[in-house]
Amino acid sequence: MAEHTIKAFDEEIDRLRGLIAEMGGRAEAAIENAMLALQRQDQRLAAEVVADDKRIDALEAEVEKLVVQIIALRAPMANDLRDVIAALKIVSVVERIGDYAKNIAKRVPLIAANQHKLEPVSLLPSMGQVAGEMVQDALNAFAARDAELALAVVERDQVVDDFYDSVFRTLVTYMVENPKTISECAHLLFIAKNIERIGDHATNVAEMVYYAATGQTLPERERGGTQQQEN
Amino acid sequence: MAEHTIKAFDEEIDRLRGLIAEMGGRAEAAIENAMLALQRQDQRLAAEVVADDKRIDALEAEVEKLVVQIIALRAPMANDLRDVIAALKIVSVVERIGDYAKNIAKRVPLIAANQHKLEPVSLLPSMGQVAGEMVQDALNAFAARDAELALAVVERDQVVDDFYDSVFRTLVTYMVENPKTISECAHLLFIAKNIERIGDHATNVAEMVYYAATGQTLPERERGGTQQQEN
Repeated sequence: MAEHTIKAFDEEIDRLRGLIAEMGGRAEAAIENAMLALQRQDQRLAAEVVADDKRIDALEAEVEKLVVQIIALRAPMANDLRDVIAALKIVSVVERIGDYAKNIAKRVPLIAANQHKLEPVSLLPSMGQVAGEMVQDALNAFAARDAELALAVVERDQVVDDFYDSVFRTLVTYMVENPKTISECAHLLFIAKNIERIGDHATNVAEMVYYAATGQTLPERERGGTQQQEN
Repeated sequence: MAEHTIKAFDEEIDRLRGLIAEMGGRAEAAIENAMLALQRQDQRLAAEVVADDKRIDALEAEVEKLVVQIIALRAPMANDLRDVIAALKIVSVVERIGDYAKNIAKRVPLIAANQHKLEPVSLLPSMGQVAGEMVQDALNAFAARDAELALAVVERDQVVDDFYDSVFRTLVTYMVENPKTISECAHLLFIAKNIERIGDHATNVAEMVYYAATGQTLPERERGGTQQQEN
């Protein structure tokens, strides 16, 4: 590329990375606030998380426009082109993470409604904490092209999966013993599943970063006890 | 583009569309087979659905490679560039639809295991049927650039959402009355949610097709009774 084009390209890549960082920060905040709203039964905070998700979606659309513009104007080649396509994939995953946080927040009013303390609720914040940190580390790994940090995220997914299996069993037991709470516990099951999926998506981002940095694909992890076990 | 380049470009676009059609066909088959496996409690068929999902993932990777190649070699502009980027987005959604079908199949052994007939299972095939048809129509709309067909898919999502709300209530009632089945009914809840998400993703594809064909974004649909209602 001509020198002035390289300068414009570098500015656009910086802007792209800035948008991804902003999206990531908002997704991380959404997870944290959704979990806070759940713990405190704070319906106002939950409604904010739901409303703020539109901003995350808008950022994804902005990144797509910018990517198309970069490709059209700068004709990036080889690694530059792959980087730009990778940015598209990553924002798609971050947008989905934001959606899961929004879905958690949407369920908060359905659990607060019944106003007796549900013991199993206390299990979820720690699980949410781990998943939120995985998102943060995965996006930091992306920003720094840090393969080691990416690998650490992938390995931490087992923690979230184990947490989920434990929460599932606890909730089912609680439902059997407290049939009046079955409807609310169903919502808690979905919330736990949403957190587990956030962990999966953070792992996706980390795997993309690892591959981009090393050229190696990580092997498929086997889950839980028996291979087919799924909760 | 030079004439021979246009010819090569057209061939690559044809190949791209062919890969998307193949992915779509496999995703539709996965939904159908997962639901059949559930109804028949057929663990072998369920295992096939799980194994076949790798082929859908591989097709997505192939489409990505081809898109990068087309961009690098043909430098598509304007509508051609947007079409190619749209192809990337669509295969990402189709791959997720395949994942939901796989996740339904993975739960089949966990419901068959207990070997008493669960009444609520009979609700799910019709729901799966509608969602599967939405996927088929959304991908046909994409292939034909058919805005009307795309719009019909978007409007049909309400059917799946209403189905889901009904299944949720039925399952919760059944769980209260049959506490021995709570664990299996939890799996059925997740299966119903997976089918509902398949409908959502088919709607995403249809919205992309509608926008590409008309330049118009469809308004956000409001769900269910109260705006915040979520099951």
